Amino acid sequence: MFITFEGPEGSGKTTQIRLFAEFLRARGYDVLTTREPGGTEISDQIRAVLVNLRNTAMHPRTEILLFQAARAQLVEQVIRPALSRGTLVLSDRYADSTLAYQGYGHGYPLEELRRLIDFATGGLIPDLTFLLDVNPAQGLERKQREGEWNRLDAYDLGFHQRVRAGYLEMARAEPHRWVVVDATQSIEVIQSDIRRCFEQRLAAR
Amino acid sequence: MFITFEGPEGSGKTTQIRLFAEFLRARGYDVLTTREPGGTEISDQIRAVLVNLRNTAMHPRTEILLFQAARAQLVEQVIRPALSRGTLVLSDRYADSTLAYQGYGHGYPLEELRRLIDFATGGLIPDLTFLLDVNPAQGLERKQREGEWNRLDAYDLGFHQRVRAGYLEMARAEPHRWVVVDATQSIEVIQSDIRRCFEQRLAAR
Repeated sequence: MFITFEGPEGSGKTTQIRLFAEFLRARGYDVLTTREPGGTEISDQIRAVLVNLRNTAMHPRTEILLFQAARAQLVEQVIRPALSRGTLVLSDRYADSTLAYQGYGHGYPLEELRRLIDFATGGLIPDLTFLLDVNPAQGLERKQREGEWNRLDAYDLGFHQRVRAGYLEMARAEPHRWVVVDATQSIEVIQSDIRRCFEQRLAAR
Repeated sequence: MFITFEGPEGSGKTTQIRLFAEFLRARGYDVLTTREPGGTEISDQIRAVLVNLRNTAMHPRTEILLFQAARAQLVEQVIRPALSRGTLVLSDRYADSTLAYQGYGHGYPLEELRRLIDFATGGLIPDLTFLLDVNPAQGLERKQREGEWNRLDAYDLGFHQRVRAGYLEMARAEPHRWVVVDATQSIEVIQSDIRRCFEQRLAAR
């Protein structure tokens, strides 16, 4: 089972994934957690180019292609091998981030992006995707306070609002795959929402 | 005018471009030379990932996408601005390298690669392409002797032979754009072939 976590910056994905992985391991699942962009040595080298604050001249098409390159490597080297040995994979971001950020955010045609994603992933789609939904102004403020600011955060608030709207639209379009969680709740409440939804989906399979 | 140089490793592209640029500058042309992958600060960072000998786990799809990312940046940051101010651009490799190496060499579907290239370049096609054609066994031997061996050279001879055959097929399919030059000739003879073909093409425009 392949489960992804999506959401604007600062929505608390990292913490929730850590807690959810603990929960799953306690239930006896073999769990692998990973993050995008990154998750392999090669993908981390690509991530370094993407988040480098000096790379202000980066063209949006370059950014899109670098994300797909990092993703292709992660899928082939880590995610597919794990899934095929029965491991449950949790990923901090995946292909929907490209649609949200580069598609809805930067205005690149969704169809073109879907073709690129399909090439990069070889068609691998998550079984379940949690959207940690939060007002972007709040999320960015939190990230800036915690000193994790990088090049990708440096877009304006309007951009992040388009990203959020895009996520919500994708979630509405594929309700069988997406679960929207209100990420302004406490860490504990968010985590219990995630666990409950996971168990419901599992029972329905 | 946008002129590209293609050919197997060790075919002498770098030397020929340098001599051709000197010739053009002496004729009063404003000339910009560049190379792929690379040619911008960001593309050079991507190149470093591509040629890193430690990245043996790199998946072919990752490689393809990294080449497109470096290309997108080069086209938008360097080539298009130069062409629009009337500069003649000479590039050491361009999109046809992807078709030759990843398409004909690795067997990726050419149509899929053409779509990726179209995304990366925004549809920018060279006006003239010189293929420095050389037997791959000879070219690789030269490169190894000169100590420029990198990760991309480490494929077997059969691969490089498929690449060569691919180049020749592309040249046959688009004779108005391609010029095939026998790169086993001396540097001076190759250069004079290039200059003569350039002037013929210019006169025919």
